[in-house]
Amino acid sequence: MTSRAVVLSAFHKPLELRHYPTPATLDPGEALVVVEMAGICGTDVHLWLGQLPIPLPVILGHETVGRIAALGQGLERDWIGRPLAVGDRVAWASSIVCGACYYCRIKRQPTRCLSRKAYGISYCADQPPHLHGGYAEHIVLRPGTAIFRLPDTLSTEAVVGAGCALWTAIHGVERMGIQWGDVVVVQGCGPVGLAAIAVAREAGASRIIVTGAPHHRLARARQFGADAAIDIDATPDRRAAVLESTPGGFGADVVIECVGHPAAVAEGLDYCRDGARMLVLGQYGDAGPTPINPHLITRKQLQIHGSWGFEPRHVLAALELLERSASRYPFAATVTHRFTLDQANEALDTTRQWVSGKSVIVPK
Amino acid sequence: MTSRAVVLSAFHKPLELRHYPTPATLDPGEALVVVEMAGICGTDVHLWLGQLPIPLPVILGHETVGRIAALGQGLERDWIGRPLAVGDRVAWASSIVCGACYYCRIKRQPTRCLSRKAYGISYCADQPPHLHGGYAEHIVLRPGTAIFRLPDTLSTEAVVGAGCALWTAIHGVERMGIQWGDVVVVQGCGPVGLAAIAVAREAGASRIIVTGAPHHRLARARQFGADAAIDIDATPDRRAAVLESTPGGFGADVVIECVGHPAAVAEGLDYCRDGARMLVLGQYGDAGPTPINPHLITRKQLQIHGSWGFEPRHVLAALELLERSASRYPFAATVTHRFTLDQANEALDTTRQWVSGKSVIVPK
Amino acid sequence: MTSRAVVLSAFHKPLELRHYPTPATLDPGEALVVVEMAGICGTDVHLWLGQLPIPLPVILGHETVGRIAALGQGLERDWIGRPLAVGDRVAWASSIVCGACYYCRIKRQPTRCLSRKAYGISYCADQPPHLHGGYAEHIVLRPGTAIFRLPDTLSTEAVVGAGCALWTAIHGVERMGIQWGDVVVVQGCGPVGLAAIAVAREAGASRIIVTGAPHHRLARARQFGADAAIDIDATPDRRAAVLESTPGGFGADVVIECVGHPAAVAEGLDYCRDGARMLVLGQYGDAGPTPINPHLITRKQLQIHGSWGFEPRHVLAALELLERSASRYPFAATVTHRFTLDQANEALDTTRQWVSGKSVIVPK
Amino acid sequence: MTSRAVVLSAFHKPLELRHYPTPATLDPGEALVVVEMAGICGTDVHLWLGQLPIPLPVILGHETVGRIAALGQGLERDWIGRPLAVGDRVAWASSIVCGACYYCRIKRQPTRCLSRKAYGISYCADQPPHLHGGYAEHIVLRPGTAIFRLPDTLSTEAVVGAGCALWTAIHGVERMGIQWGDVVVVQGCGPVGLAAIAVAREAGASRIIVTGAPHHRLARARQFGADAAIDIDATPDRRAAVLESTPGGFGADVVIECVGHPAAVAEGLDYCRDGARMLVLGQYGDAGPTPINPHLITRKQLQIHGSWGFEPRHVLAALELLERSASRYPFAATVTHRFTLDQANEALDTTRQWVSGKSVIVPK
Repeated sequence: MTSRAVVLSAFHKPLELRHYPTPATLDPGEALVVVEMAGICGTDVHLWLGQLPIPLPVILGHETVGRIAALGQGLERDWIGRPLAVGDRVAWASSIVCGACYYCRIKRQPTRCLSRKAYGISYCADQPPHLHGGYAEHIVLRPGTAIFRLPDTLSTEAVVGAGCALWTAIHGVERMGIQWGDVVVVQGCGPVGLAAIAVAREAGASRIIVTGAPHHRLARARQFGADAAIDIDATPDRRAAVLESTPGGFGADVVIECVGHPAAVAEGLDYCRDGARMLVLGQYGDAGPTPINPHLITRKQLQIHGSWGFEPRHVLAALELLERSASRYPFAATVTHRFTLDQANEALDTTRQWVSGKSVIVPK
Repeated sequence: MTSRAVVLSAFHKPLELRHYPTPATLDPGEALVVVEMAGICGTDVHLWLGQLPIPLPVILGHETVGRIAALGQGLERDWIGRPLAVGDRVAWASSIVCGACYYCRIKRQPTRCLSRKAYGISYCADQPPHLHGGYAEHIVLRPGTAIFRLPDTLSTEAVVGAGCALWTAIHGVERMGIQWGDVVVVQGCGPVGLAAIAVAREAGASRIIVTGAPHHRLARARQFGADAAIDIDATPDRRAAVLESTPGGFGADVVIECVGHPAAVAEGLDYCRDGARMLVLGQYGDAGPTPINPHLITRKQLQIHGSWGFEPRHVLAALELLERSASRYPFAATVTHRFTLDQANEALDTTRQWVSGKSVIVPK
Repeated sequence: MTSRAVVLSAFHKPLELRHYPTPATLDPGEALVVVEMAGICGTDVHLWLGQLPIPLPVILGHETVGRIAALGQGLERDWIGRPLAVGDRVAWASSIVCGACYYCRIKRQPTRCLSRKAYGISYCADQPPHLHGGYAEHIVLRPGTAIFRLPDTLSTEAVVGAGCALWTAIHGVERMGIQWGDVVVVQGCGPVGLAAIAVAREAGASRIIVTGAPHHRLARARQFGADAAIDIDATPDRRAAVLESTPGGFGADVVIECVGHPAAVAEGLDYCRDGARMLVLGQYGDAGPTPINPHLITRKQLQIHGSWGFEPRHVLAALELLERSASRYPFAATVTHRFTLDQANEALDTTRQWVSGKSVIVPK
Repeated sequence: MTSRAVVLSAFHKPLELRHYPTPATLDPGEALVVVEMAGICGTDVHLWLGQLPIPLPVILGHETVGRIAALGQGLERDWIGRPLAVGDRVAWASSIVCGACYYCRIKRQPTRCLSRKAYGISYCADQPPHLHGGYAEHIVLRPGTAIFRLPDTLSTEAVVGAGCALWTAIHGVERMGIQWGDVVVVQGCGPVGLAAIAVAREAGASRIIVTGAPHHRLARARQFGADAAIDIDATPDRRAAVLESTPGGFGADVVIECVGHPAAVAEGLDYCRDGARMLVLGQYGDAGPTPINPHLITRKQLQIHGSWGFEPRHVLAALELLERSASRYPFAATVTHRFTLDQANEALDTTRQWVSGKSVIVPK
């Protein structure tokens, strides 16, 4: 028996559909999962463009929901201790850390584990068991994967629609801290920006101002609770527009950069009031240096925080948030475009061109 | 009766010696102080170069020790409640804040007070009572100045030698936080760098690595307790040299930038281990943007803190530190060059050219 | 011209209605305010019982809204800089601190100012200008009072209904910190408990469990957003009931004590999961020691925080919260009983016997 | 071949010397260690008195240094990655956590792991491999034990002399936080008190006041750097004595309870200035409730922290501290009494009666 999977085998080249053997037996602690839905993340575009060092070929897809087809010996419970059984619908943290290196042990920065590996990113598809990405009919989860059984009340669309963006935003806000009452500027209204709006609102932000484009994404940002939405394409002086939207015109208490272009960081510093905090959340690709004025950091006595990835507990927090506040943050509705495995290139393209809210692959 | 004072009346031009009337009477809450010693701060060089917006003419000098010559009505105690009398030797916080603005009241960032005024920087010497800078025989302290009576055990040289650099470093480290056991890199070994070494050591740093030049300043850094001193002029690959000096080569837990050149901030990011904290303490002048790679902030999940000026309680903490640890941190010995008021231009020049440890003016 | 005022002149004795001269002129910085509504606080009952050291006679009332009748020289703006004029409806922080003592200056605990004075509590009514409490037709505000002009959209009932309880809860939660997602137990459903529910919700609590009595107060707690309400009179094993209501039965992430009986603190420790935080917010009266097991603090590695009073910025935050979230937290509706000045004893009695939501005095 | 070991088989009864088989083969990841020195901890006395729920019989001893006699398959490196070999001198964290429970995973309180097991405390000696305590010739370390290879510059006496007290103090101070410049009261001058003095000094305490008895222990506290030592047996009003020893008589910024008697916690609250932090570090035994006045927590707006046990990284920090500051903190010299395995009862007795600095067992 084989599973179909979509493989990135050369940067900038079309993804290819391949067949890999579906494992008949599992190692202890492994799980075989039938993929129900796999999200297309902006990072997948970066990977396709060769902007991060990864092994090729790779089966893309790190935001996935599926149903358990088989459980390896000893794998009986999910990450928080609930029993697992064949047929259960599950999600999982897409990365695994070693727990033993300098960053895992001594400095408690597990997201910077020296041996961190992520489904859909770090596993060469040539090596058995091959199926370590979400753009596929099946995925094999390694021992130690943080698996979460999904409650019936939580839709697959909501989980994939929130995707790793929500996990990442939760981690970032945890590191920076938001005080209730803070006036928050969110730069960017893609999936990370929407997630940041949701987390900022949950954490008690009194006012959320989002900057971004295009128009359909800004509209969605308003649905997620943004109090003001500034179209960066249509606003001649957006610095003035942002400041005017803050109390007294002094600037925001908190700025969350969710754009990805280096220049957004320099711009974000201008949105900060003196003594503000800023979270640089979107700079996953290394696009090199950009002009930034460090005098602003000293004079405005800013706090700037970076955050990378997430831990399993952030995935748990995300799932709890989705369940608790489904009506408040319409993540499920962000899934606007669905594709089959055969249409994977088309799917990637919609994400690359910011056409969709969230594009997903539904293998069957 | 008149007081002699040294005035900056035009940027880049020699300072001038002028005479101003010594006030015969004081307003309530004022103090008249005979200057014993006035420090030349690196900021004075920036002011002389016209790099900060100030009114001219101005009597320079914001690091001063003197003796009380007269006390205005109602001024009976120093900032912490000790009785004040004519003849007492005193130091004071060089800036006064309004206590009523957005930053003082609501955001608790008093160093960013919208009406902050500093002796030796913000007062036009043309306006009575004229004598609001330290390069002078007398200085008039306004009501509300945080005055500190100095104990006999604390030398004038130690207080002026530490100068506002120590107040600033204490404030900065308070904002960033140092955990005991942290490995700390201090960039720069001028007065702010030395102060940062002292504060980092007090806060429990397990290892302090200083980078800087010239050689005599690095030697002094070692006297202040630096465990390693890297000469940036003599080290081909200083990034490698710094990392090698940190445990496992991963980089420092904390980096404190005390250089002032914008490029030092970009360099400091390279000295950080993942998850490190960095304090941007030296960027007082606005030298415009410099290339900085924001990807490092995200990927290394850094914390970057800025800090501006100080509050009276930081001056108090500095005086207590000086008294407690005089033998550990030889601030008094940093006063290497003394000048009269007539030699003020020469004094400024030694500071500008990094010849001296600390240059001071002794009016008589 | 005279103002009628209600005076506590002997503990445990009925309050008395007296007449004091309404000041015809004001000192610089003072304000004369016509009282519109004065809240009866639980603390007023403690004062009446003689449980706090205060000067007698005293005009009670520290939760007040009124209209400006006259402004002393120089008083032109409210605490955040908005213009003040005769006729403006205002509230104010009920206490004034010195800004100069050990706690104000050095330790930054202004609520513990060594010279703190509070309207309705600390001023002897025998001394001019007499009118320093809210149970009166007029109140004279001293220079330095943090006055807030009220927007038309904010009802007097909401401000008095929230009262000092909301200011106090905001301060306490600021000190302890609530992380979004925290499971919170609020002990007590009087005014402080309701305020704590509101603040915990704003700060992102994922679940709020309230314990208390009587039934009408628990019902109100639910209106304020409590997810579970445990009637302490009707629940045989309330520890078990609380724990069952927390995820996994481990206990709460956060416990906020708003009861006032010392025994509640010991009980609160039992509601904490290991590693939890607890806020001891209700112990304003000194009722002496109670049995507490300190082994629980060590073994459960708890964090316990105390908080006293509030600063003006907490009053500001409360007013902003009330304006922003009026529909979410029906503070105005808690004002269930209105009395005239003549009925002040009756008013105090309803509060003492927990009959009312909030009792208020409307002087005319 | 057999190993001699000292067993607690009945509470309050003499310890017994027994023989257990020395394992000839090891499971993967295990280590066989020849015990060089085992410390007698105050907790051992509590265990002997039956004050904690443990399985009997148990080989006591959780503060141990030894040499590796054999390594199980796959155990090749110590906790921080240094190679391990037969003959290496090592210490290890005495407890192992599961990494998978509610406290390990979700709440990040691993010291409260629901399945935590500690050498010398939690292992029944009847069950193979029997040798899981330090009062023995050999000890078998389980897979997952955090082992640390000791550098030659670090004496066995220093490591055992510091014992788990130092690990515990480091953890506790991490939780509470000490700011440099803090005035610290340490209650108690046993091993935990001495460790607290060392950690407080390292963290930048400006003044350390220790309270305790008997005289020889107070003298040692001074050797560790205490600035003042108050003999609780010889001081009629020790509250007054402590307060007088703090600046302005206001009380300490930080109080660290290292006594163990519940009453010490109530007393410690009296030593706090308003806004102070207190660490309840000594209440390992459950001695039931003691009268505490919760009004003090509210009125003085205190922060009270508890802390339990330690994690491997605290052991690492302790070893680094010992190596760095051997001359500053004479932990090795606290080992005043040495015993053979045959003298174990006598050893326990010296600890019970506070005769020794630190008593240790040297098996051969």
